[in-house]
Amino acid sequence: MRVEIVAVGTELLLGQIADTNSQWLGEQLAANGLASHFHQHVGDNHERMVLAFRTALARSDALIVCGGLGPTQDDITRAAIAEIMNVPLERDDAIVERIREMFNSRQREMPANNLLQADVPRGATVIDQRRGTAPGLICPVGNKVIYAVPGVPYEMTEMFERTILPDLLERERANGETSVIASRVLKTWGASESGLAEALADRFVEMEASESVTIAFLASGIEGIKVRLTARGQNAEDARRILDEEEVVVREIITSKLGDIIFGTDDETMEDAVARRLRERGWTLGLAESLTGGLISSRCVNVVGASQWFRGCVVSYASEVKFNVLEVDEGPVVSGQAAEQMALGARRVLGSDVGLAITGVAGPDPQDDQPPGTVFVGWAIGDTVSHAQLRLPGDRPRVRSYGAISALDLLRRALDALD
Amino acid sequence: MRVEIVAVGTELLLGQIADTNSQWLGEQLAANGLASHFHQHVGDNHERMVLAFRTALARSDALIVCGGLGPTQDDITRAAIAEIMNVPLERDDAIVERIREMFNSRQREMPANNLLQADVPRGATVIDQRRGTAPGLICPVGNKVIYAVPGVPYEMTEMFERTILPDLLERERANGETSVIASRVLKTWGASESGLAEALADRFVEMEASESVTIAFLASGIEGIKVRLTARGQNAEDARRILDEEEVVVREIITSKLGDIIFGTDDETMEDAVARRLRERGWTLGLAESLTGGLISSRCVNVVGASQWFRGCVVSYASEVKFNVLEVDEGPVVSGQAAEQMALGARRVLGSDVGLAITGVAGPDPQDDQPPGTVFVGWAIGDTVSHAQLRLPGDRPRVRSYGAISALDLLRRALDALD
Repeated sequence: MRVEIVAVGTELLLGQIADTNSQWLGEQLAANGLASHFHQHVGDNHERMVLAFRTALARSDALIVCGGLGPTQDDITRAAIAEIMNVPLERDDAIVERIREMFNSRQREMPANNLLQADVPRGATVIDQRRGTAPGLICPVGNKVIYAVPGVPYEMTEMFERTILPDLLERERANGETSVIASRVLKTWGASESGLAEALADRFVEMEASESVTIAFLASGIEGIKVRLTARGQNAEDARRILDEEEVVVREIITSKLGDIIFGTDDETMEDAVARRLRERGWTLGLAESLTGGLISSRCVNVVGASQWFRGCVVSYASEVKFNVLEVDEGPVVSGQAAEQMALGARRVLGSDVGLAITGVAGPDPQDDQPPGTVFVGWAIGDTVSHAQLRLPGDRPRVRSYGAISALDLLRRALDALD
Repeated sequence: MRVEIVAVGTELLLGQIADTNSQWLGEQLAANGLASHFHQHVGDNHERMVLAFRTALARSDALIVCGGLGPTQDDITRAAIAEIMNVPLERDDAIVERIREMFNSRQREMPANNLLQADVPRGATVIDQRRGTAPGLICPVGNKVIYAVPGVPYEMTEMFERTILPDLLERERANGETSVIASRVLKTWGASESGLAEALADRFVEMEASESVTIAFLASGIEGIKVRLTARGQNAEDARRILDEEEVVVREIITSKLGDIIFGTDDETMEDAVARRLRERGWTLGLAESLTGGLISSRCVNVVGASQWFRGCVVSYASEVKFNVLEVDEGPVVSGQAAEQMALGARRVLGSDVGLAITGVAGPDPQDDQPPGTVFVGWAIGDTVSHAQLRLPGDRPRVRSYGAISALDLLRRALDALD
């Protein structure tokens, strides 16, 4: 099965928004062993959409169209697909009813143009909408298929996982393809992509020879470098066994050469890693943030069950808040001493067992004679009060984001060091 | 001139990296009045690249190919273009010399495979490399043209600006085309895409008739709906004049039918809108966040010059922090009264002129008998203390994100109401 992705929207061509959908879908297809040889972007124009869809169907077996399913005049994916299928659009009463109910439940009038979203090409199957108002479509074209999903990532991903991926895999099985691909991601923080590649160079050669598992390095922006292992097995259990064995080997190599840089597996975030350690000890956390302005705190509350261990945060952006609320000594506020006093202040004000604090210079100008990128992280655990100094690269948002994950990583390591 | 962008690289199809090149190029082309109707991604495979290039040449006048010009085995753009041109590749001695010098100047041996980068399709013009080792190419195909540039953004952008854009504009002039495209975005919060479309339906028809300006609606996730006006003028000034006139008309329609929902223009964010109003009055802001866990605060510190008006935040995630630090009355913490007391507490603890607070239920479970999505926003400005109740849709992260922008929007409106 060769699956082509067509992202629809003039805003993509004009560069006004980034096409994150094709990237996400590409990753999902690859992880499930489905080939994708081409992607396209096309604008909200009927003739060009029809041309793009025909081009895709000529060179691929399945087509995922993202976007153009909304309620406005420029949402014309339905009509373009109907032309490809050579069928009329028909209004689906059940969809009309669902959209109407959705507006009623929010106590809002339904604008009449929402009914456009209930138009379905004859012969297509509806993917019912769970997160927005636009349903998706499964449209057979000869022995090929067009899937249409909304361009909103939140709606698209849910429909892909719930309906399109199972449908694609079912078609694969019907074609006699039976092997299963599985992958596992080891998430690292603190090493470079080339450093990881060098550490694993010998193992890479051994894997190439064995052909049962492959390795790839993904730089995931501010979240560190992901090491992805991908195995092909006769069935899911077989693939998992191969991954389990390889993970042990790769972990051992990374840890022995680069230290304790693996903080999580698959979807586990740095805040998940910290939360797990705090919950194991029954401890609570209080934060004091200056540089990061609440970024660490907003990461913490995204962990399910955060109220069990997360007390809160004092964002002491103004120096007076550091002095008056956190009782930091008056003087330079970008220093190791200030970071430690902030951690103690957070623990006292918020009534937590552990305090974590960050202060620094986001730039572009220096502060307290420190250049941009200078960051101090302080923590207070029991009788231990300590700090670390970092030099982080990048512009303001990058220094902040790196600072947030670095602070959580330092706390992770400090908690592990207690054992 | 219709310009198609083809980004080459299997890593794009696998979703391992984002295609920022197409977005950047799309923006540059639009800003210079050059049409782009299609983008493609294709992997490092000779047959598929040839197919993608032929497809592009059939429907566009010029083609910008990004990537596949490096020194490794999978860099095969040169060969694919040579096949399209039906000419051989010839090694260019001047390029060989430049690459050799580049390695010498870095005191490094030149690996032999770098010579591949000196291969040029017969009849193509070289775009000399200034930032990397791979030169670009200008390849005539009949009366059309293929430009090839490296996939590294830093190298690609320089070659585009120095050579490709002037060449494209020269071709436009030769064709007698001189118009310029410009666009403007009005950012709204609080209306649905369909509601906006319905409000502007009559104007949409008038615009279609006039053909000088078009309108589009972009749902930008948690940041509301963008209304984009795009005008074609005889020159930049003419296009801007058309946009200025249309903006007045569209603002009037939106405001009269849907209220004060336009909070910014182009890149202006909701926090920019709030910051502008606070700076105008010389006021400072202090926050208290429960539900959003620091999200509003981290948005505020992203505004350049935030230290002039932003004092900080108390993230009172645990109820005890609300009672002990913010002096909220003990009892239910998801209520209008709690939100108002939090706003007063934030103002007192952080020493600010204005206090803004948010509390609510992110879900999945109810709290204080309130269902998930129930949110209270409180604010304290001078002697005025007030609150609003919201019902927000979605899962935990979405309720939080909607809550953050909603709270800022309520403060924006409250500040405007003072006048």
